[in-house]
Amino acid sequence: MQRPGSSSPSCSSTSRCFPLTHLAAARCGSETAAEAEKREVRAHSTPPEPSRMRSIVIFYSCYLSCLCLGLACVACVCVWFSQWRGGFAWDGSPLQFNWHPVLMVTGLVVVYGIGAVLYRIPLTWGQNKLPWKLLHAALMLVALVLSIVGLCAVFDNHNHSNIPNLYSMHSWIGIAATALFATQWVFGVAGFLLPCSPISLRKLLKPVHVWFGGTILLLSIAACISGINEKLFFTLKGNATGTQPYSKLPPEAVLGNSLGVLIVAFGLVVLKILSNPEWQRPDSRPEDFAYAPLIHEDNE
Amino acid sequence: MQRPGSSSPSCSSTSRCFPLTHLAAARCGSETAAEAEKREVRAHSTPPEPSRMRSIVIFYSCYLSCLCLGLACVACVCVWFSQWRGGFAWDGSPLQFNWHPVLMVTGLVVVYGIGAVLYRIPLTWGQNKLPWKLLHAALMLVALVLSIVGLCAVFDNHNHSNIPNLYSMHSWIGIAATALFATQWVFGVAGFLLPCSPISLRKLLKPVHVWFGGTILLLSIAACISGINEKLFFTLKGNATGTQPYSKLPPEAVLGNSLGVLIVAFGLVVLKILSNPEWQRPDSRPEDFAYAPLIHEDNE
Repeated sequence: MQRPGSSSPSCSSTSRCFPLTHLAAARCGSETAAEAEKREVRAHSTPPEPSRMRSIVIFYSCYLSCLCLGLACVACVCVWFSQWRGGFAWDGSPLQFNWHPVLMVTGLVVVYGIGAVLYRIPLTWGQNKLPWKLLHAALMLVALVLSIVGLCAVFDNHNHSNIPNLYSMHSWIGIAATALFATQWVFGVAGFLLPCSPISLRKLLKPVHVWFGGTILLLSIAACISGINEKLFFTLKGNATGTQPYSKLPPEAVLGNSLGVLIVAFGLVVLKILSNPEWQRPDSRPEDFAYAPLIHEDNE
Repeated sequence: MQRPGSSSPSCSSTSRCFPLTHLAAARCGSETAAEAEKREVRAHSTPPEPSRMRSIVIFYSCYLSCLCLGLACVACVCVWFSQWRGGFAWDGSPLQFNWHPVLMVTGLVVVYGIGAVLYRIPLTWGQNKLPWKLLHAALMLVALVLSIVGLCAVFDNHNHSNIPNLYSMHSWIGIAATALFATQWVFGVAGFLLPCSPISLRKLLKPVHVWFGGTILLLSIAACISGINEKLFFTLKGNATGTQPYSKLPPEAVLGNSLGVLIVAFGLVVLKILSNPEWQRPDSRPEDFAYAPLIHEDNE
């Protein structure tokens, strides 16, 4: 017996469960530009329903918040280390250390988070997936390079000042995040961009890739919070350097704490976008895999 | 036209997309014990398919890991503060502070995490939902009380020793996590346990409740990592107290860092269980809401 609410057998589960799914799934790679264009025209000519529109408006509000919070994080960390900590250099001095927080926050948090939610932008769904895959990989490469240079900055400064490396909780979590990120990038390129990678491997790899993506972000947020905490305790001691102690919450401490709050807020918005099934690119949803006949999956 | 793979219109999307969904959804509250028992017998008499079995086995492996990691976290934090930091007291001394990490890790991380994944246990799906709701609320109340007592311990110790409160990044994130948790518990009881709460409110509240649940866990993990980092820097200074400095990684530092790694691993397993749609209690899935006629939702 047909279940109430399922008006027609031809109406797939996905199109009813997820309000944005009417936009046809752009299959990766070998789809022609004409096919993608046709689908885009079809998608845009369909009058949007209120629930679909609401979902799109909420998505773009989250996405805009994500961009604004990311920009605020980068501005905050740059102002902190340029105005309060003397600026930047690459000479083994504490000024070289200053690149570490700036590059880690910019790379491992902000560029990483913006790269992670790229596929969720509904505007990209009616288009060929390959250029978006390349942009996703390129953004992640930028994030990875920034993170590695950020790590080099702190190792170089530590070695120059005879400070031991990799003993604190902050460093353990941070190095784990960067190592996982590098592994994730290599497996991502090998699994999703190399033409020789079989569809069965991609289907197996995708949920693992998505889950590790969230894990890396969680680790990088934990590393940032502990790093900010540690830096403020180290530098704001109220001693001969003339700084007020951290416990008195001088302006630098408020700025550092605010940076932490912004990073947490940014991470939560990114995780919110990643975890909402309505905002998954239609051809990335498990329902789509479950329904699509094998012949349609060639280009995934 | 019927889509390939959708063999019959009567077969709901959920039952094909999610291998565990054949277990009928136990509606909350007013379902009779006999009805629940019948469903359970039906569910257990259906021979399990390989994919369903695989999903169940993976779930229980994750759940067992979650329990073992939680136990390891509690053991680790208890050993650290009883063996290395002099044990416990409630007299305003540093021994009172020692209750803080023990109670926060036990309450805000371990009991909270175990309470959060309760509905995901497939064994509970064939049963009346109300007792599980009550157990979920009770576990969360235990977690909340432990967290509040843990906060009292540190405030009391700080006030006794004239140490300022709530200035560090660690304290900001930790207090935000506990405040959100208290709010979440009150709204959870009001929204999901009070009989007068309308079904429309429950449907509206559920995704918010689930999302804030993950957010609180993320905040508590970030607070724990920064707290462990801070504690180890404060206590392992290699000064007159005879301790080796943190940078030499003495046994206490390795134990503290390992506790941090265990907490992160526990959090990741809990978030993995929460985020997998296959492991959602069938009547909690959005697909179920989309399909279920209003008359069937009375008991949600």
